[in-house]
Amino acid sequence: MQDPRESQRRPSAQGSRIDPYVGSYAARAQGMVASEVRALFAVASRPEVVSLAGGMPNVGALPMDDIGRIVWQVVAEQGSTALQYGSAQGDPVLREHICEVMGEEGIDAAADDVIVTVGSQQALDLVTRVFVDPGDVVLCEAPTYVTAINTFAAFQADVRHVEMDDDGVVPEALDESLRRMAAEGRRVKFFYTIPNFHNPAGVTLSAERRTRVLEICRRHGLLVLEDNPYGLLRYDGEAVPPLRSQAPDNVIYLGSFSKTLSPGFRIGWALAPAAVRAKLVLAAESAMLSHSTFNQMVVRRYLTAHAWREQIKNFNEMYRERRDAMLGALDALMPAGTTWTRPDGGFFVWVTLPEGLDAKAMLPRAVNERVAYVPGTGFYASDEGRRNMRLSFCYPTSDQIREGVRRLVGVIEGETELRDTFGGASTPAAAGDDSPFPDLP
Amino acid sequence: MQDPRESQRRPSAQGSRIDPYVGSYAARAQGMVASEVRALFAVASRPEVVSLAGGMPNVGALPMDDIGRIVWQVVAEQGSTALQYGSAQGDPVLREHICEVMGEEGIDAAADDVIVTVGSQQALDLVTRVFVDPGDVVLCEAPTYVTAINTFAAFQADVRHVEMDDDGVVPEALDESLRRMAAEGRRVKFFYTIPNFHNPAGVTLSAERRTRVLEICRRHGLLVLEDNPYGLLRYDGEAVPPLRSQAPDNVIYLGSFSKTLSPGFRIGWALAPAAVRAKLVLAAESAMLSHSTFNQMVVRRYLTAHAWREQIKNFNEMYRERRDAMLGALDALMPAGTTWTRPDGGFFVWVTLPEGLDAKAMLPRAVNERVAYVPGTGFYASDEGRRNMRLSFCYPTSDQIREGVRRLVGVIEGETELRDTFGGASTPAAAGDDSPFPDLP
Repeated sequence: MQDPRESQRRPSAQGSRIDPYVGSYAARAQGMVASEVRALFAVASRPEVVSLAGGMPNVGALPMDDIGRIVWQVVAEQGSTALQYGSAQGDPVLREHICEVMGEEGIDAAADDVIVTVGSQQALDLVTRVFVDPGDVVLCEAPTYVTAINTFAAFQADVRHVEMDDDGVVPEALDESLRRMAAEGRRVKFFYTIPNFHNPAGVTLSAERRTRVLEICRRHGLLVLEDNPYGLLRYDGEAVPPLRSQAPDNVIYLGSFSKTLSPGFRIGWALAPAAVRAKLVLAAESAMLSHSTFNQMVVRRYLTAHAWREQIKNFNEMYRERRDAMLGALDALMPAGTTWTRPDGGFFVWVTLPEGLDAKAMLPRAVNERVAYVPGTGFYASDEGRRNMRLSFCYPTSDQIREGVRRLVGVIEGETELRDTFGGASTPAAAGDDSPFPDLP
Repeated sequence: MQDPRESQRRPSAQGSRIDPYVGSYAARAQGMVASEVRALFAVASRPEVVSLAGGMPNVGALPMDDIGRIVWQVVAEQGSTALQYGSAQGDPVLREHICEVMGEEGIDAAADDVIVTVGSQQALDLVTRVFVDPGDVVLCEAPTYVTAINTFAAFQADVRHVEMDDDGVVPEALDESLRRMAAEGRRVKFFYTIPNFHNPAGVTLSAERRTRVLEICRRHGLLVLEDNPYGLLRYDGEAVPPLRSQAPDNVIYLGSFSKTLSPGFRIGWALAPAAVRAKLVLAAESAMLSHSTFNQMVVRRYLTAHAWREQIKNFNEMYRERRDAMLGALDALMPAGTTWTRPDGGFFVWVTLPEGLDAKAMLPRAVNERVAYVPGTGFYASDEGRRNMRLSFCYPTSDQIREGVRRLVGVIEGETELRDTFGGASTPAAAGDDSPFPDLP
């Protein structure tokens, strides 16, 4: 007896443009959408465009001679281990070094509670797959990191945003969200936060608010997922201790070498309460068996053989100059009615355009004027962020940044003129249009 | 108003051994279990034990001088690209080389249909997350690769086995399974097969059966997931073309450099019909953003700068000798009533013990006698495989293999004597005991 659905499910002839498996995908595949950041790789790579879009660190500033020597030594001296399979939790010696790195920010952790991941992106993925059933709520800041939204959505989470201001997430708004979710009988699985030099908002959660956020989450029995890739990249002011340093049992902490060393090795990590860590290791095993032993041994040797704290200082001097170039140009050139955040570290400035302007609709015009940014809408699961854009100062030089801001100001002024003349700027995308990125000229 | 479930969900005090998040995990986390292979890393590493358990390739045979030069050159000559983020689909030049490698086995593919993954394990994970809803059926061979079962289970698939013999999966059994599933109204998402030098069974699907398997799957509108990590490691006989070479639209093909070069770089890939490939890239992006650019450029340079086909020939001579050592020792020493497969390539021999013996229950005794293997039960989602064990000949030397088989034969003879005297050998684990691995002395 044949399956009656068979004729629908049978793949079509070779070369057909119709997807024969369209009825076979999992429900979660509906939530997998192309990110704005990925689409931007193509734009950012054109030489004539000043890209204020990408979040790529300036790896050209790395000591290539030293790194070349390190990778060679790992093969020459430890090849038969480095080129073999490793464990799903990651190299134990590297995990010890990771605890040292976290110690720089005031975290006291044991290597046994650390799992090494393929960038902190994989840690986000593992945490989500361990905790999130379809329909579960994940609370995020408004705005939040675009690929975190994609990961939560890929596991069919209901992503809700909590208001932020210049001091980070607003504790009262978090409490109110949690009360509302409880009243509605919703299961909230964790609160995802980027407390330092937020991506994309550029702001830092104040010390006083960290204590309140932890108190609120503890009261509601909620885990905090603390994502801290930029913590050591501070250019001004005093470091604020991570949430994890105050609440080891209530926080899953994510770190990364992508910004302090290189994203090319894909070494990130999660630090989690022991029971959670055990689940994450099992999830990692089914996700990839084990991470690259070679890359782990390279990073471990770099942390031993190289003055890595000095390297971070060098990075910070370079990025501070670029941030100053960006803030200086914004201060000097931006028309009235436009506002922006003033980051003490990290890579990003968050801009709010005057009422009536639409950063997403404006982007093709900006690219025509040879400047790119990420429109704010990508950083929301909801239909917010149209007046916002993320500008990054990590990759272009200070001169390029100033030129990029100059071009951007021209575009904004043109849009403002259109708005004032015709009562509307670039045609905004139709309501309900969820295409993640407009076609670019 | 507070959530009434709050008191249960509130994390306990620091240092408690009770998992405060036990009520918070996703349903899929129940399906995440420790694999037998992972637990074996600990056993296999004791120097006095001859491990016939692990599937680690013999990377000590790699040309370390050449690889050391290659990794150094990638940093020295391409550092600013190699140490940067890449795309979720993977390096385009490497994908071209991957098409060449697949061409060696008769596959005609375009680089655009390839996605680079963290070993082929990640490809398994991505395919599963794109296709499998909870309760969907995945058909596998009986037995099948242990970590594939874990991955399918982690997405709550219902894993069903299809009978195999010395020529691979039995086509009539596959057809019968598909008819039964259709009659029961079950959704079957794909048939997972390891056609060459099967892990753990050691057998190869015959050319004639490949055509029939494809015909059956096409008739039922079913995708084939072809996992081929060992295809180029053939020691005898003629190569049999991959399923993918006959049916580009019906097969997702998985390959890997873990066995032909090194598992330490974690470079595997999937080749899929275009619509499926697009979904896999989105899934990869939310899973890890991008793979290591550095590792991809290392493998790409290795494939250009090094005589990689010669290296595979060298591997094959070494592994052939080890396989011969294992089969020779089994032929010479194994007691009557024990049978085993005769692999033409790959890493594994599948042993069936005489009636009444239990390979899982016998393992602690074997380890006491300083020999280890993987009990057959790990390779089934069901309660089968108690009389089976997987022996691998990839990592130990020929002398160690002979000594390991000698010790193993002693253990089997001891168990047989117990069985004959008392009517039962080592106490089998209680029915329903699904602990994946016994505690070892």
